[in-house]
Amino acid sequence: MRLFTMALWRRGAAWLRGCRGKEGRGPGVLRGCAGCREVVRTCERYAVRRLPFARPEERDVAFFERLMPGRVLAGEEEAEAFNVDWLRSVRGCSQLVLKPQTTAEVSQILRYCYERNLAVNPQGGNTGLVGGSVPVFDEIILSTALMNQIISFDKVSGILVCQAGCVLERLSEYVEEQGFIMPLDLGAKGSCHIGGNVATNAGGLRLLRYGSLRGTVLGLEVVLADGSALDCLTSLRKDNTGYDLKQLFIGSEGTLGVITAVSILCPQKPKAVNVAFLGCQSFAKVLETFTTCRAMLGEILSAYEFMDEKCMELVERYLKLSSPVADSPFYVLIETSGSNTTHDEEKLNNFLERAMASGLVTDGTVATDNKKIKVLWSLRERITEALTHEGYVYKYDISLPVEKLYDLVTDMRARLGQSAKNVVGYGHLGDGNLHLNITAESYSHSLLDAIEPFVYEWTARCSGSISAEHGLGFKKRQFIEYSKPRKAVLLMQQFKAMLDPKGILNPYKTLPSAPERSTG
Amino acid sequence: MRLFTMALWRRGAAWLRGCRGKEGRGPGVLRGCAGCREVVRTCERYAVRRLPFARPEERDVAFFERLMPGRVLAGEEEAEAFNVDWLRSVRGCSQLVLKPQTTAEVSQILRYCYERNLAVNPQGGNTGLVGGSVPVFDEIILSTALMNQIISFDKVSGILVCQAGCVLERLSEYVEEQGFIMPLDLGAKGSCHIGGNVATNAGGLRLLRYGSLRGTVLGLEVVLADGSALDCLTSLRKDNTGYDLKQLFIGSEGTLGVITAVSILCPQKPKAVNVAFLGCQSFAKVLETFTTCRAMLGEILSAYEFMDEKCMELVERYLKLSSPVADSPFYVLIETSGSNTTHDEEKLNNFLERAMASGLVTDGTVATDNKKIKVLWSLRERITEALTHEGYVYKYDISLPVEKLYDLVTDMRARLGQSAKNVVGYGHLGDGNLHLNITAESYSHSLLDAIEPFVYEWTARCSGSISAEHGLGFKKRQFIEYSKPRKAVLLMQQFKAMLDPKGILNPYKTLPSAPERSTG
Repeated sequence: MRLFTMALWRRGAAWLRGCRGKEGRGPGVLRGCAGCREVVRTCERYAVRRLPFARPEERDVAFFERLMPGRVLAGEEEAEAFNVDWLRSVRGCSQLVLKPQTTAEVSQILRYCYERNLAVNPQGGNTGLVGGSVPVFDEIILSTALMNQIISFDKVSGILVCQAGCVLERLSEYVEEQGFIMPLDLGAKGSCHIGGNVATNAGGLRLLRYGSLRGTVLGLEVVLADGSALDCLTSLRKDNTGYDLKQLFIGSEGTLGVITAVSILCPQKPKAVNVAFLGCQSFAKVLETFTTCRAMLGEILSAYEFMDEKCMELVERYLKLSSPVADSPFYVLIETSGSNTTHDEEKLNNFLERAMASGLVTDGTVATDNKKIKVLWSLRERITEALTHEGYVYKYDISLPVEKLYDLVTDMRARLGQSAKNVVGYGHLGDGNLHLNITAESYSHSLLDAIEPFVYEWTARCSGSISAEHGLGFKKRQFIEYSKPRKAVLLMQQFKAMLDPKGILNPYKTLPSAPERSTG
Repeated sequence: MRLFTMALWRRGAAWLRGCRGKEGRGPGVLRGCAGCREVVRTCERYAVRRLPFARPEERDVAFFERLMPGRVLAGEEEAEAFNVDWLRSVRGCSQLVLKPQTTAEVSQILRYCYERNLAVNPQGGNTGLVGGSVPVFDEIILSTALMNQIISFDKVSGILVCQAGCVLERLSEYVEEQGFIMPLDLGAKGSCHIGGNVATNAGGLRLLRYGSLRGTVLGLEVVLADGSALDCLTSLRKDNTGYDLKQLFIGSEGTLGVITAVSILCPQKPKAVNVAFLGCQSFAKVLETFTTCRAMLGEILSAYEFMDEKCMELVERYLKLSSPVADSPFYVLIETSGSNTTHDEEKLNNFLERAMASGLVTDGTVATDNKKIKVLWSLRERITEALTHEGYVYKYDISLPVEKLYDLVTDMRARLGQSAKNVVGYGHLGDGNLHLNITAESYSHSLLDAIEPFVYEWTARCSGSISAEHGLGFKKRQFIEYSKPRKAVLLMQQFKAMLDPKGILNPYKTLPSAPERSTG
């Protein structure tokens, strides 16, 4: 990746003739890394038409280069990696990436784009799983990668204030040195940005204990579509002065504003952490183990995750990890976090004795030191990575009543038979959140048709959510009405129209496309 | 209180000539209970002009009586108690109270009022402290008192779904029988409605442990100003399908919609609860006690409340309660809730030994049985009630960094000197929330001028919130800009205009009045 230079830019405006939607696409395959090139363009795979935004021109690049010298990437190759999502399932054809460092720069960028009617794709660590973080056509990519400064940390209250582009893992390390932890943790922590976490209302592994970002995010600074900044970056646990505007931006996937800074409440670092990894003979036992452990571990329970035997096979095969317990149809990972080592171990041992004695669990191991804990967690955290080795992955992230959680996996497996390579289920059982993944050698329309809308209809019958934590992004937006009444969707569209009347912020995301609007 | 009868109604339309704002007020003092009559009308005390809504007429009453026979109260006396707030600090002059039982009835009421341009004041238990729950002029009172049905309770997940008018204490009793507790608890629990709690984003005594309603409320059903119902009454811990609309209604004080049903996540009932009541010699020791107990009690800490000696004097004098510990400048109430009695007592004892040995605490008592726990809690919970015996109470509910929390009380006491009867401070220290209360024999403009805007300016200098949990209601709305930037207020006004274009829902509340609009 090279920074933009005028020399490069001067090789002509050819890049501006890139992707133009179904009607007017540019000259075939983009140059750049082979991996990215293999990914089929979003506008080719999906029925989506470019909206009538202006197209970035030479004068626009010149403007941005004056605003942020050396922090503008222009051209096919330079922008290529920013166009493809982590799953390599969608690809845009933007040829302009901007890397602001300050809120003022974000304001100036958006004010300019708003006036020029240029569409903008805000991008954090680009670890999203629903195609929300990359352009669909030629939207200008606004990357928060250089907005990575910690603004303040209060050691008494545990309140962290930082720019949106800070990487979650770096923040974790920073607050842990001071005796605190981040209230969220997820597999993508090594690259995801806190601003992206907030914009997508990321859930993750600690939600069971510390709640969602709707409670732990205390304040936000946001730049709106017209470039005006909204400073709600307070650090108060309680504030009932008017409507809580920040909530609207949490989970709006960059469609209502660009989050530039975050104030977040960090819990104290627990003195004792234990992880138990257990084998269960049926999903019914997984559930019973959950209710037993919730009662016996109470306030120290910090995670209850499950995975099926197929998941274990995949992490063993592709990542060479090895299961610490005997082969079982299901595995459970239980984490405790508390303030007293002796008390916590006693609680955990009492629970494990009960679980073994009553046959809920057939085999298990417990880790108390940090290194072993990480090894056990990696079995669960790296499933997503293992799945990508299978070929194409159809990903579903469903909220369901816990009793019914695994029935969807069983039903899907029966339905698809040999047409899928694997149908696996894992997830945050404690939160009623199933990750259903279906793998195949490569993408096929017919397999997709066998899965959808079946999976959504199944979920809607149980009053579940078709996206528990991944969001709707590009890939799920047309299915919103399986989980939300039409009235709610209409209201969302009104909010969007109010806050971003030209629709320049992350177009084609979150809300269903209006069928009457056509290509530009 | 009698239900409306046509006979009563037929005594003429005299009641319709009630309060007409500054320009055209009706015939003097309303008839009714002496207590209510003493309260000065809001429109007489404050500079507020009636907006040009239609005035309720005989045909309107007839319409409502057909819609909800026997559940319409019309007339001065019938409506009087609904016009005055619990503090007896504000008084409207509505003469029409509606008591719907179903969401469909609320829809029909609002559709009618919207068409007729009649203003509506949604009212729950009428326990608000900022004048948000009673009319200012002749707004029709929509009481949720008869919407008191529990819809469902799931014993596995602890998710309760109920109508908005359920009284918090009744819900607490109901879920406790099934091994759960409500995630919020407050002094007004005996009369406040869950819908009102959500509409005002009530904080209370358990927020430190279980977080705010923004995390525990899973779903809402809301009727909008035009009568359309928005059904977001889901029961999922995680749902990232589009914008989280319910958040906008949480804390909007009935100005954006009428909450008709609530889905809420109840924590498991703790097996062991302990309360320690301690005396501290200075506020610095109160703070040090807090950091020590947070570290040593960790996950079992469920409340950390403080009160000054003035508060203790008042509850002793007016309520005949007696302090269980030796006279001290400050008192602290610490509650633990956990799953293991032995562990919790050991943690608490270790902490108390440390606190006594290091001189943080000079005297203290511990309660483990329910009855004694209630006695200790009542010292803290009944301060509000004791204060009302002093005469008029100027109430402030401030969020501040904990280190500065009590400085505001000290500064205010010095500033007011003999002009106030008492200046007291207490509150939820663990949440950074101070309740500053100033008492006088009766209301006086000059004392108010000495307090305001001083108190707000002081708070704004510390980047605090001028309303931590009470909301803005009628009495604080003009001060919103001490805690929110103008841009945020403008956005709030846009949301209000979008959702309630005629402004019929709880007018004169939450948002500052637009100076250019005049009386009708």
